[in-house]
Amino acid sequence: MKAPKGFLFSTVEAAIKRPGRKDLALIYSEKQSVMSGMFTTNNVKAAPVKLDMKRIKSGKGQAIIVNSGNANACTGEQGMKDALEMTALTAKAFGLKQGDVYVCSTGVIGTPLPMERIRPKITELADNLDIAVDDVAAAIMTTDTFPKNISKIIKINGKTVNVAGICKGAGMICPNMATMLCFIMTDANIDKKALDAALKSAVRKSFNRITIDGDMSTNDTVLIMANGTAGNDLIKAGSKEFDVFAKALSGMTYELSKMIVTDGEGATKLVEIEIKNAKNDNDAEKGALAVANSLLVKTAIYGNDANWGRIMAALGYSGIGIKEEKADIFLNGLKIVGKGMGTGRDKEANEKLKNKEIKIVVDLHLGKGAAKVLTCDLTEEYVKINAEYRT
Amino acid sequence: MKAPKGFLFSTVEAAIKRPGRKDLALIYSEKQSVMSGMFTTNNVKAAPVKLDMKRIKSGKGQAIIVNSGNANACTGEQGMKDALEMTALTAKAFGLKQGDVYVCSTGVIGTPLPMERIRPKITELADNLDIAVDDVAAAIMTTDTFPKNISKIIKINGKTVNVAGICKGAGMICPNMATMLCFIMTDANIDKKALDAALKSAVRKSFNRITIDGDMSTNDTVLIMANGTAGNDLIKAGSKEFDVFAKALSGMTYELSKMIVTDGEGATKLVEIEIKNAKNDNDAEKGALAVANSLLVKTAIYGNDANWGRIMAALGYSGIGIKEEKADIFLNGLKIVGKGMGTGRDKEANEKLKNKEIKIVVDLHLGKGAAKVLTCDLTEEYVKINAEYRT
Repeated sequence: MKAPKGFLFSTVEAAIKRPGRKDLALIYSEKQSVMSGMFTTNNVKAAPVKLDMKRIKSGKGQAIIVNSGNANACTGEQGMKDALEMTALTAKAFGLKQGDVYVCSTGVIGTPLPMERIRPKITELADNLDIAVDDVAAAIMTTDTFPKNISKIIKINGKTVNVAGICKGAGMICPNMATMLCFIMTDANIDKKALDAALKSAVRKSFNRITIDGDMSTNDTVLIMANGTAGNDLIKAGSKEFDVFAKALSGMTYELSKMIVTDGEGATKLVEIEIKNAKNDNDAEKGALAVANSLLVKTAIYGNDANWGRIMAALGYSGIGIKEEKADIFLNGLKIVGKGMGTGRDKEANEKLKNKEIKIVVDLHLGKGAAKVLTCDLTEEYVKINAEYRT
Repeated sequence: MKAPKGFLFSTVEAAIKRPGRKDLALIYSEKQSVMSGMFTTNNVKAAPVKLDMKRIKSGKGQAIIVNSGNANACTGEQGMKDALEMTALTAKAFGLKQGDVYVCSTGVIGTPLPMERIRPKITELADNLDIAVDDVAAAIMTTDTFPKNISKIIKINGKTVNVAGICKGAGMICPNMATMLCFIMTDANIDKKALDAALKSAVRKSFNRITIDGDMSTNDTVLIMANGTAGNDLIKAGSKEFDVFAKALSGMTYELSKMIVTDGEGATKLVEIEIKNAKNDNDAEKGALAVANSLLVKTAIYGNDANWGRIMAALGYSGIGIKEEKADIFLNGLKIVGKGMGTGRDKEANEKLKNKEIKIVVDLHLGKGAAKVLTCDLTEEYVKINAEYRT
């Protein structure tokens, strides 16, 4: 994958959880960048999240140090000391201001970081800098089965602007707490306000549609760095150029979200839940999330059983406006419920469920609200992975 | 199990889902009874629930007809016609007022009741009346693996008062929509207001602590009938006698709740989550439910992995007041978290998890709020049962 201009990357093995893979990574911009970030809303936040939330207020930054294998969450004062030390050592190794260094951790909660193994490796990172952004995508994986990255080239005022994104999902989508880390690098020249707006809008329609707001992990973090190296005229919020940039960003985060869902623990199917004609957008989103989070819906999809009663029940308990006698449900285009009742096409519907991509559309016929949510099925494998996670 | 005086029961095979078991049952009081009921808060309600909710306003009743194998939910106008017909046929067979007959259904959603098979069997019920309340408990089972019943004898003004309860759980506890039906029969002489109050209080601390309010099925129903045959002085709310009755009732519904959880689909362990010293009771309940509903906590318990970080994270996203640095967590008496950090006793804790009964106590040290919630672990077997439910 092509890295945006002026960014370098580095990965090493620090044997944080166990030896055998690269688990410490650095994202480095040659120039100080404009930065924006979004963080978990969980009341229990990991030390690195607390630190980054403070630093992002400056709107600036130049490097991100990331480790997998340990979340540095629920680690008390020592956790914050360790997070600070990771940024201090990185700043020293690369000659940066400490405030320009961000830190992210993902992995097991409640175990102090093995700083004795991390410390010497941070200086080593400086010797390995290159443009291999893909290596970072691999180093931040936990139970992910494939690295997730995407890049785009757009034109702004005739200049070539690169945007690249990497993320790790791990865990089921709509997770109770699987950590989601996402790093986006761009050489665009863009002001802080515009960058904030573009990121917020992109995340709302992507990462926030594969997880419930209140259900975020202790570590979820999205960071974007824009170093201006492309040399385009400054992008400001509300301009045509902003729209081009924001659209590219939204498209990328949506694709990354899809990769996370596809790689849901034990998942065999990608499932899109769309609610149409709800009373309002808020109802549509709430209803779609209730269906997407229903264990009974997820297991039925896994079992190729078009048990639409479970969809109706989830809509019913979601608390949104619903008139049972008005609701239609479509499964990959097949109408399985008409006006709240089965259309008698369950056998055909069960066949449709054998597809790897499932699209469920619910038309509530109540208003104009709409929302889409991505999810996956729930399998025995999910249980197995999560019962054995630390062993 | 001893049936309260003046109650008779009957069960027959109507082959509603498939032949081979008794799936139609009648609870009959020789005298018109005082009745009280509580119903699902799901916006999508089954036809029998809608009907019972109307009839319970009279505060009276004499019979309940129940079927398993079909929920008569999402069945449109026909569903209501069928529910009405079931009560009409029952009333005719037993010489009752139709308004004194209640109906409950549990099973698959969205399929019309096979009335052609049910009709002839309702008259047959009249020929089989006896005091075998246990048979009813067996007839209302769906994926339950054992019938659930309990009885108590109490003294009120020197008179012997019998209370008997039966229920079906099916499904995991904290279910997205597993139907819970509970029928309580007593020969107590009690006024309507007192019966309502006793039932409400009992359900709040039992059935509502094994399921989330908004997560109820389309069919959940609790009905209590008091026929006064015991001959005690009328029990009124606020009296000493009321307290004796209410306490007995609460104890019974709690035991029935425990049976439901023990019989959770695929469950191997009974888990109690207790939150102590929360800011208030509401916070305690919300926090306990979040922990109890976390798939990651449930799978870790199944896997004998005392991954307490998942408990902290669930508390964090539950939205309640929490100060990480104050929280203690105990697992079957062993302190695994002190002031928000691991106590380093994970190996001992993993051993504790091999018990069949797990008790997790979280002390938030923030106030005086407390709540207990019952749940179970999440296993591959749960996924299997629910992927194959209709096949």
